[in-house]
Amino acid sequence: MIVARFEEIVGEGGVLTAPEDLAGYRADSTYRVEDGIVAVVRPIDTEQVAEVVRTCRAHRIAIVPRGGSTGFAGGALPVPGQNVVVLSTERMRKIRALDTVADVLVADAGCTLHELREAAAAAGRLLGLDHGGAGSSAIGGNFATNAGGNNVLRYGMAREQVLGVEAVLADGRVISPPRRLRKCNAGYDLAQLLCGSEGTLAIVTAVALRLRPAPLARATAMLGLVSPARALDLLVLAREYLGEAISAFELMSRSAIAFHNAHAGVAREPLDEPTPWAVLLECESTSRFLDLDAGFDALLEKAIDREIVVGGTVAASEEQRRGLWAVREGIAVAMGQARFFMVKTDTAVPVGCVPEFVTRVEAAATERVPGCRAMAFGHVGDGNIHVNVLPPNGMADDEFRGHGAALSRAVDDIALSLGGTVSAEHGIGRGKRAALERMLSAPELDLMRAIKRAFDPEGLFNPGKLVG
Amino acid sequence: MIVARFEEIVGEGGVLTAPEDLAGYRADSTYRVEDGIVAVVRPIDTEQVAEVVRTCRAHRIAIVPRGGSTGFAGGALPVPGQNVVVLSTERMRKIRALDTVADVLVADAGCTLHELREAAAAAGRLLGLDHGGAGSSAIGGNFATNAGGNNVLRYGMAREQVLGVEAVLADGRVISPPRRLRKCNAGYDLAQLLCGSEGTLAIVTAVALRLRPAPLARATAMLGLVSPARALDLLVLAREYLGEAISAFELMSRSAIAFHNAHAGVAREPLDEPTPWAVLLECESTSRFLDLDAGFDALLEKAIDREIVVGGTVAASEEQRRGLWAVREGIAVAMGQARFFMVKTDTAVPVGCVPEFVTRVEAAATERVPGCRAMAFGHVGDGNIHVNVLPPNGMADDEFRGHGAALSRAVDDIALSLGGTVSAEHGIGRGKRAALERMLSAPELDLMRAIKRAFDPEGLFNPGKLVG
Repeated sequence: MIVARFEEIVGEGGVLTAPEDLAGYRADSTYRVEDGIVAVVRPIDTEQVAEVVRTCRAHRIAIVPRGGSTGFAGGALPVPGQNVVVLSTERMRKIRALDTVADVLVADAGCTLHELREAAAAAGRLLGLDHGGAGSSAIGGNFATNAGGNNVLRYGMAREQVLGVEAVLADGRVISPPRRLRKCNAGYDLAQLLCGSEGTLAIVTAVALRLRPAPLARATAMLGLVSPARALDLLVLAREYLGEAISAFELMSRSAIAFHNAHAGVAREPLDEPTPWAVLLECESTSRFLDLDAGFDALLEKAIDREIVVGGTVAASEEQRRGLWAVREGIAVAMGQARFFMVKTDTAVPVGCVPEFVTRVEAAATERVPGCRAMAFGHVGDGNIHVNVLPPNGMADDEFRGHGAALSRAVDDIALSLGGTVSAEHGIGRGKRAALERMLSAPELDLMRAIKRAFDPEGLFNPGKLVG
Repeated sequence: MIVARFEEIVGEGGVLTAPEDLAGYRADSTYRVEDGIVAVVRPIDTEQVAEVVRTCRAHRIAIVPRGGSTGFAGGALPVPGQNVVVLSTERMRKIRALDTVADVLVADAGCTLHELREAAAAAGRLLGLDHGGAGSSAIGGNFATNAGGNNVLRYGMAREQVLGVEAVLADGRVISPPRRLRKCNAGYDLAQLLCGSEGTLAIVTAVALRLRPAPLARATAMLGLVSPARALDLLVLAREYLGEAISAFELMSRSAIAFHNAHAGVAREPLDEPTPWAVLLECESTSRFLDLDAGFDALLEKAIDREIVVGGTVAASEEQRRGLWAVREGIAVAMGQARFFMVKTDTAVPVGCVPEFVTRVEAAATERVPGCRAMAFGHVGDGNIHVNVLPPNGMADDEFRGHGAALSRAVDDIALSLGGTVSAEHGIGRGKRAALERMLSAPELDLMRAIKRAFDPEGLFNPGKLVG
């Protein structure tokens, strides 16, 4: 009966219930579910979303909102034992406004990050958010999970791109339209509160995002280092030479590069002389009066002179630049496609603690499982190093899987002891609820639960996720 | 009896009750109260704040938190008819950490913005927040009100400087210490929710702020324009030439400059040939590889060539630069010191709507009170133009005061009709509660009230402010 009502609201083509149609809605980048989805409902506008919410509320069936489902935390899937309606924003794809005087882009929640970046670029502007899932992840999901990525160092997380939000509340009422203001001190900032709330407080239907000047030039290099401590020296030096022009600063261990090379069947090293660590450094200029090449060259000369950098490759063309990024992105891809179990983490620590964090994680992992391989890579400029722990050569998958929870917890505990977080950018979803409870104090958890109750007293939105 | 208990907690010198001692706590930049302050309590650390909160809660007496009391909305004062304890952070003045690797500053709530900017500068860094009240306003208050100012265009409001917060909750529990992380997706962002909550949800005791590279060079000019529309043309052109290096873009009407000149007894015009409007443009470089002077010169040449700019003065020295800023800041000072009533506003509109906003406000004001003078000045780069309406020459103060509410409402209504806000940076406090109710939709107001109840069910913190 509820399905018929959904069809009235969004049209027949907007509702999916056949098992073969639901197959595409059962997984994100980490999790997979076999059942629990009563229907996938695909509204085309905000009023349809509101009517779907009112219908679900009347029928006391929970809603899991879904963007591109590129997340890592199970946030867009039901948890086992639930029966839910998946509300997909995939048909909400309008760019409502692109204003190059105010530098504001207003878009429906279902627009992909990639298509919005392209629209901004076509207007000579930059949308300062980018990550590996840009091609299919939806802007509503990027907002709801406060997505990060490769350029956070310069442009910030999704949160820092947001000016306003449109959302449907649990009682079916709508906050609309998204504010486009640079400055607005008019009560509690609901947009900032919804950003990162992972679909547990409201369903995002549109966002207003700030745009920035488009980069005119880039300089990119892969630089060899002997340790993560040298990476921090390089970061400080780079800021001294190029100020805020640094747009990416990604650290990779030799072992992570080697893993990618083996996976991708790449023979050629990104560095002529392999070093224990490498940094992918990229700077972007938004003014033709910034001599980026001169600054980049002077920085590298000084870094070599001070023995911070011990080798490297500067991209001489866009093709070479893509080649260097292919290494960095290839590591994550190789890890994602591995046919064996590994422990994946998304911790962050204060930037200066990165070297200690890496050393302690390596020691803790090999102490628990001798021979296992901790491979570190990630956004060192933000303190967000992903350390994945791979099994010792020859260990059976099930045996290593048995160590998974303990290893994962050990990494989290080291991060927390350094004032860090168990989730830097991937969020909590269903997978990190226990870790979140270890991380937060009782008053923080109490406040979050009180906020959840204030927005969604009946637990309609994304139950079993975050603190809901 | 409660005073004796406060003296036990913070020491005798920490509690003020004598009328002459309370005199300094009765005003902010707009409001003045004659009574309602039972005591001013001045803790020196977070534990003392928590104990003061627990004591007030037990005695069912409300708390008004107070930083430097430089606000414009009455937020740090009791509202008429209340008896409250003022909790002043003035003795909480420690800089807890200044980390130039992570570029993080952690400071007690009572540190003034000026002293934190100085500390950052001494370490070769910039704290990207500045405004007219920096000398005495406290960082806790800047955080709690999401302060803005002159450099929002480049560095954002207080919100964008914040990494973490320490705060005492209404039940006396403490969220501590402030997180120092660049990235943390671990639940609802409580720091962002407290930022701008105006002391109604918790008492801020410390904040962690991000630091940025210090500017190495500046270029500053006062430029003559014929209209606000030309100012937007100049803004777009400046972004094209200098990208994100634009750090201030302040618009002033001829009438506002003339008012300042008359007040300050200045004979000399900032521009050789007075123009109807002027923009104070400032750019900052954080890399010695940015040729700021060349970029600035090229921009001005193009702007003159296109007849966007029709005159101007480029600062050739730091002294001249200060002279240009003295005009901009002098306008606000002159308005503040005027001995007659005027209507002051703090609206913002989408940046592209600024010209229409100014025109409509002038028309609406003179329609209501023929001969009155609308003087516009402010942060046009953020869409935040302060339009103050001064009485017609010769009108009695009381008569014009009688028009105040209607004029103020007319300005707000024009801003709202353009998708703007009744408060861009000064906040709601006690003064703009009615305007806030006109601005927000019912679901927004309901959510804000629910959040207030979730944090402070007994109404202990700053009653009568914002939605409390």
